[in-house]
Amino acid sequence: MLKPDVIKELSAVVGADHVMTANEDMIIYSNDATMFNAKPEAIVQPGSRDEVVEIVKIADRHHLPVTCRGAGTCLSGGPIPLKGGIVLEMTRMNRILKVDPVNKVAVVEPGVIAFALTTAANKVGLLYPPDPSSLKESTLGGNVSECAGGPKGVKYGITRNFVLGVEAVLSDGSIVKTGNEVDGDMAGPDWTMLFTGSEGTLGVIISITLRLVPIPAVKKTMMAIYDRLEDAAKTVSVTMASGIIPTTLEIMDNLSIVSVENYLKIGLPVKAGGLLLIEVDGVESTVEEDAKRVSEICKKCGASEVKMAKTPAEAEELWLARRSINPAFGQVAPCKFAEDATVPRSLVPVLVEKVLEIQKKYDVPIFICGHAGDGNMHPTIMFDKRNKEQKERAEKALHEVHIVTLELGGTLSGEHGIGFAKAPYLRAETGLAGYKLGQEIKKAVDPTGILNPGKMFFYEGELH
Amino acid sequence: MLKPDVIKELSAVVGADHVMTANEDMIIYSNDATMFNAKPEAIVQPGSRDEVVEIVKIADRHHLPVTCRGAGTCLSGGPIPLKGGIVLEMTRMNRILKVDPVNKVAVVEPGVIAFALTTAANKVGLLYPPDPSSLKESTLGGNVSECAGGPKGVKYGITRNFVLGVEAVLSDGSIVKTGNEVDGDMAGPDWTMLFTGSEGTLGVIISITLRLVPIPAVKKTMMAIYDRLEDAAKTVSVTMASGIIPTTLEIMDNLSIVSVENYLKIGLPVKAGGLLLIEVDGVESTVEEDAKRVSEICKKCGASEVKMAKTPAEAEELWLARRSINPAFGQVAPCKFAEDATVPRSLVPVLVEKVLEIQKKYDVPIFICGHAGDGNMHPTIMFDKRNKEQKERAEKALHEVHIVTLELGGTLSGEHGIGFAKAPYLRAETGLAGYKLGQEIKKAVDPTGILNPGKMFFYEGELH
Repeated sequence: MLKPDVIKELSAVVGADHVMTANEDMIIYSNDATMFNAKPEAIVQPGSRDEVVEIVKIADRHHLPVTCRGAGTCLSGGPIPLKGGIVLEMTRMNRILKVDPVNKVAVVEPGVIAFALTTAANKVGLLYPPDPSSLKESTLGGNVSECAGGPKGVKYGITRNFVLGVEAVLSDGSIVKTGNEVDGDMAGPDWTMLFTGSEGTLGVIISITLRLVPIPAVKKTMMAIYDRLEDAAKTVSVTMASGIIPTTLEIMDNLSIVSVENYLKIGLPVKAGGLLLIEVDGVESTVEEDAKRVSEICKKCGASEVKMAKTPAEAEELWLARRSINPAFGQVAPCKFAEDATVPRSLVPVLVEKVLEIQKKYDVPIFICGHAGDGNMHPTIMFDKRNKEQKERAEKALHEVHIVTLELGGTLSGEHGIGFAKAPYLRAETGLAGYKLGQEIKKAVDPTGILNPGKMFFYEGELH
Repeated sequence: MLKPDVIKELSAVVGADHVMTANEDMIIYSNDATMFNAKPEAIVQPGSRDEVVEIVKIADRHHLPVTCRGAGTCLSGGPIPLKGGIVLEMTRMNRILKVDPVNKVAVVEPGVIAFALTTAANKVGLLYPPDPSSLKESTLGGNVSECAGGPKGVKYGITRNFVLGVEAVLSDGSIVKTGNEVDGDMAGPDWTMLFTGSEGTLGVIISITLRLVPIPAVKKTMMAIYDRLEDAAKTVSVTMASGIIPTTLEIMDNLSIVSVENYLKIGLPVKAGGLLLIEVDGVESTVEEDAKRVSEICKKCGASEVKMAKTPAEAEELWLARRSINPAFGQVAPCKFAEDATVPRSLVPVLVEKVLEIQKKYDVPIFICGHAGDGNMHPTIMFDKRNKEQKERAEKALHEVHIVTLELGGTLSGEHGIGFAKAPYLRAETGLAGYKLGQEIKKAVDPTGILNPGKMFFYEGELH
């Protein structure tokens, strides 16, 4: 619990209405979309960059942890205030400061909902491609901090590929501006990537400059249905080797199909071993040709059927299945480890095979779905945490998924972030020298260590 | 001069043939493509990653500066050994370790010539887009360290956008591996950008993982000729606002045109105020349509003529003019400040106007050319350094070019790097907090400060 003097100081900056200390508030702000939680000592909602600077200075003076939070949809524990202190809720800073169609850049405050930017960009014929499932809830500050992805990553890349610059408040209250509105061209030092994906451990982001791209003229959506999941996985690597780069290449296993069908009753093929949802976009002539070629590849790889959407409404219907996996999870078990194990795309079939083995070995339900086209898979392990023995089996399965991913030259996290959910495995991914480098950089940039402590390179639990 | 014992230690690692200490060698390795120079105390040519590790350890033990060098084509003083010590010449490490067409990545050693990679990638239907003018001489290690660009930046981006990961030897001899072969998808910390563009001040790059893209089916090249340079500049921003993204959008002023014509005698329009070299690529139908639309935009903006290449040979002829600017410079004066002032592309017309004013004010020839499509301009100030008064005017003009670029929200360097040529202005670009951040990161990653000392954030001269 913070001292009344500190609360008074904080209230003087943002107004008493924007400082919360009631126990019920602390409970609400103690978690994200993972199963973990830890209570803060106060929630502060800054309304401007100057207020952020003042709050960070107060925190620094009193050695109080500062953990940033957007919408709290994080899947790795990023916004959980492990060491108490202040949760800095950034959602009041939600202005789109600029959408510039000539230079194809947007400048936003961190609390802008991703969907608000895509809407604003669309109005001037531009696209902001990263679209995590949380598109309509999550903030761009969170997206940048966790380096969010989404189904369009295969063609367009993830958040990292769209951040041209940020402004961030360091723990001494100084403001660093990185990058600029020059799209991409910049030699010399650029610290943008220090703040992208570092989950608020190095600075508090107060503005973001993002790259936009022209909206493709047309798109074509199809669904390929397979008896065997392995054949769907094989289609992914064959398609990616063909020279065609689809916008989307999503995979769903039988468990995902059946769960979504139970949930929605839309006539999905519940006997199928797997399916792919594929989209190609671009100019009309290419899209038609690409769609035809992809459809042929699917059949050659063993698809029993390829449904091609003829209208936008039919495309939307095909997407509905993919979009409903998350809500459908809940039918299988109350708890989940939602992973984003990512491997080189040619190895998607191997990862799928390994996960099927793990599923068998530990007898826990694992949804196998994800953005297969860029190797970003979502093996989602289901369990009930009240059943201790089952939870243990789920944890063992999770451990093996992490190890297999790293053995395949992959990364622990394609889009959800490290937070502390994956922090025990971070050293195994970076190697000892990389881990030490991460610690030294954190110490150099945040010498007092007040920013999101206990996460990533400063996780205090056991390392694998 | 190094002590004989140290030379013996270095020779034991790489063999006596690969350690040079003769004065004539020191002179050759004292400069790059700028006018600056400083002699090293030894040149060492490692043949493997293990040798790099051993040499760095020896240097660390004896507190010897280590400055990496590729082909020495740098335009900012990056490979000049300001504080003496060892020049680490990386050209023996020139193996392409992997070109993977499915995952669309290449892994190379730092001494690979950029052109060797483009050739290897082309063989499997892939493209490595960054193509600095030094493509056929410069090494990928140098390209990554300086973050090289080139005429295709407008559509594809610069080197930064293609580096998926590196392995680098830190000053304590440990090897850090950043990123991986997963194209783009990676949340969590990624220190790749620490080593990209940091000019060998943080680590010695020993391998690079690069992203490749499919080769576009067709391209179309055209040249638009203008009475007024300002109209050519205006065409750039109008084109970029049209939704079309050309592969190339190069600008040349009258001085560039006349100098190239004197040099080559190929019938260039010597009375033109300026010209644009434009290329569009992609699939056939779009390329035809885009080329037609761009041609119309050129005419609407005041082009007196638009020449469309009908054959690859004709396209090559149009490119010849652009490619010959560098050799043509020499006719005007023996010395040059070859800048890469880069501004948001909508402000190219403003930058051109300002440079024309500066040219007038200081009465020095300034070539105005460059990759206008991404705002990456090359105002090149010509002078004779033996004429002190003229050199002073050139320096004043250079100062104003830097200031104007920063005032327009641009960056000092779009592709040549900071080195020490632009280091006096770096703080003006990053701001004080960003500059201090750069210093703290350098101290954290290279605590003994042996890597390329005196450059970037540790420039010892006066700051503007």
